Amino acid sequence: MKGFFQLISSDEFLSLLDRFDPLATEQVATAEGLGRVLAGDIVSPEQLPPFSRSTMDGYAVRARDTFGCSESEPALLTVIGEIAMGSPGRALALQPGRTARIWTGGELPEKGDAVVMVEYSHQLDGQTVEIFRPVAPGENVIRAGEDFEAGGTVLARGSRLRPQDLGVLSGLGITTIKVFRQPRVAIISTGDELVPPEEQPGPGQIRDINSTTLAALVREAGGVPTCHGIVGDDLAAMQATCDRALARSDMVLLSGGSSVGRRDFTLQVLEGIEGGEVLAHGVAVRPGKPTILARAGNRALFGLPGHVASAMVVFYLFVRPLIRRFSGCGADPGLVRIRAITDQPIPSAIGREEYVRVALTRTADGEPVATPVYGRSGLLRPLVQADGLLVIGRDVEGLDAGVAAPVLLLP
Amino acid sequence: MKGFFQLISSDEFLSLLDRFDPLATEQVATAEGLGRVLAGDIVSPEQLPPFSRSTMDGYAVRARDTFGCSESEPALLTVIGEIAMGSPGRALALQPGRTARIWTGGELPEKGDAVVMVEYSHQLDGQTVEIFRPVAPGENVIRAGEDFEAGGTVLARGSRLRPQDLGVLSGLGITTIKVFRQPRVAIISTGDELVPPEEQPGPGQIRDINSTTLAALVREAGGVPTCHGIVGDDLAAMQATCDRALARSDMVLLSGGSSVGRRDFTLQVLEGIEGGEVLAHGVAVRPGKPTILARAGNRALFGLPGHVASAMVVFYLFVRPLIRRFSGCGADPGLVRIRAITDQPIPSAIGREEYVRVALTRTADGEPVATPVYGRSGLLRPLVQADGLLVIGRDVEGLDAGVAAPVLLLP
Repeated sequence: MKGFFQLISSDEFLSLLDRFDPLATEQVATAEGLGRVLAGDIVSPEQLPPFSRSTMDGYAVRARDTFGCSESEPALLTVIGEIAMGSPGRALALQPGRTARIWTGGELPEKGDAVVMVEYSHQLDGQTVEIFRPVAPGENVIRAGEDFEAGGTVLARGSRLRPQDLGVLSGLGITTIKVFRQPRVAIISTGDELVPPEEQPGPGQIRDINSTTLAALVREAGGVPTCHGIVGDDLAAMQATCDRALARSDMVLLSGGSSVGRRDFTLQVLEGIEGGEVLAHGVAVRPGKPTILARAGNRALFGLPGHVASAMVVFYLFVRPLIRRFSGCGADPGLVRIRAITDQPIPSAIGREEYVRVALTRTADGEPVATPVYGRSGLLRPLVQADGLLVIGRDVEGLDAGVAAPVLLLP
Repeated sequence: MKGFFQLISSDEFLSLLDRFDPLATEQVATAEGLGRVLAGDIVSPEQLPPFSRSTMDGYAVRARDTFGCSESEPALLTVIGEIAMGSPGRALALQPGRTARIWTGGELPEKGDAVVMVEYSHQLDGQTVEIFRPVAPGENVIRAGEDFEAGGTVLARGSRLRPQDLGVLSGLGITTIKVFRQPRVAIISTGDELVPPEEQPGPGQIRDINSTTLAALVREAGGVPTCHGIVGDDLAAMQATCDRALARSDMVLLSGGSSVGRRDFTLQVLEGIEGGEVLAHGVAVRPGKPTILARAGNRALFGLPGHVASAMVVFYLFVRPLIRRFSGCGADPGLVRIRAITDQPIPSAIGREEYVRVALTRTADGEPVATPVYGRSGLLRPLVQADGLLVIGRDVEGLDAGVAAPVLLLP
């Protein structure tokens, strides 16, 4: 039935994304893994650190040799040598009453179980050192395997890799990793009025804004965008471009169609995909109501609103979660959510979630304050001024000034 | 004077970064500009939108022709045509009592000043339409230049470009932009005990973790990292590697030197740079106290702690701000700062700022809760578990459980 909207909630929309599976996996060098998502648990192939290490400069000791010593009654230990960095400390064995000079990160000698900081020692001569403070066994030492035991899980499948994770992998000698492939996302702008950004628009024409914006949003979300240009309001041409894009992509974003007539076009294109199925047509959020989601196998097609401001909101709410799901993460927007205080009443209607673009400032004591940046839906300036999206639930009729509300921070 | 630490505050350290200038500028394609920083104000070369556009599907009218109409007494207007998308609406001129069919985004006809939504109309025949609701002048219209006037500032110098900013630039036909060059950052790991991640460490040896971690941190901050490998504890070799790295970079990160002896080494290397000057040696933060900053012209050299956990904190507090300053932004960490509630008392000492790694969870009503992930400074696991750095000021002696504290979110 043409133009019929069966509005679903944003939660229902998100649950549809579970019908898509994470993409295939591939091997990448750990050093190139920033932001990628692990396709399997990482199990430590060995213990880390590989040996018991000093965390201080000082003297490796048998802790009991220092028990009871003090500033006035120092323990006297015989220095049997120095453990040079990178040399095998275990080659030395500490007999009772003996000690060895050690540096931060150095390997403890055999039988050594603690390190006395150099600040609490005084070397009397080449052979003898006074110790002024007792140490407990294990003090100033990281024991072998204390960080990661061999066979233990270091990072779980689905972890998005951060710099420190890559560091740990390097420390364990894991120089290649299995990650999910990055989703390839095709972007198609539709509309007879559109010209590419590098062209001078004629009367009644306007430059395509959505392709550039969506490509950057995709890249930022961890996908690999490909722009398939502008297609006029011609069903056959749209269908052909969409088929071509789908053949090379995991996801197709069709944008345009703010008018009812053109929305029908987009719907017809998505309904006409071979082996395809329209999963959703209309979602109870504002902006973003006319969003369409279709699938063809494990590939997804989105019909996005034509206004870039609305398309961006739909991207953050629904497209980004699917990019993340394809990438192996949870199907959520992956945006930082904070709480901010409204500085004015914000109207909204019952029955739909509202996402209000807001600029954020802070009170003197650091509390975030949200100011709506209003503007008609076709305007760009509010987007440039916005720091986040303030969320108003579907059962709420507007917010008063001075109340706390959740805000999704734009990346 | 060897090993002498003149501790400065973190604010004093940050103010030293003002002595460095943003890097040279370069032209890049707007479509490749995500995350780059504008080197000059962007002034709108033309107005946007270029013509007055409808924001609805409906009928373009002279608003006064609808005044006083209602459901029971509709205004009757003569339809003179349809404004196809991308065609010059201004070619039509509305005489009083006339209207034209228009679509969302279409150009208003000459003399048309408002649009009646199709929902409030009824087409009687090919020539006549009934209008049931009056519209005010400007209603459902974005007028030419309403978003950006020609000659107005669209984006200011120093703006870090987000997807929507790139979209606006595309909309204005600005397809190349002048941005600051990305800083080239050389990374050198030092220590006789280190081997590269792909090698099997011998007794007393350990794999280099810092190079991989710092390279990812640099990339994530918008810099271009180059790893210069591992240099043993050999002053001449360190000096030579440092000179070589400096010749090709805007910044050099020397890490290693957790031990007092090696710290002196790093200091000697940085003091020995030709035309160089040590700006800071020691900062009153924990972890990160032994940090060294030197400059040679507009190039920076950092001596970072050897423990990767400490090196990461120093990176976020001081290196990231300088990467941002070089890139043309403000010299701040550029991390999201939230407030979280402590779930336990957290000790700290007066006289230094403390940065405590914390994992974040949320209460039922969405309030963030911070739990310290403790561990000796040489351990990696706390880093993997941390979501942010909780900041305790230098004049504060620990935090109680249940108090709000600022937390810098790790990216």
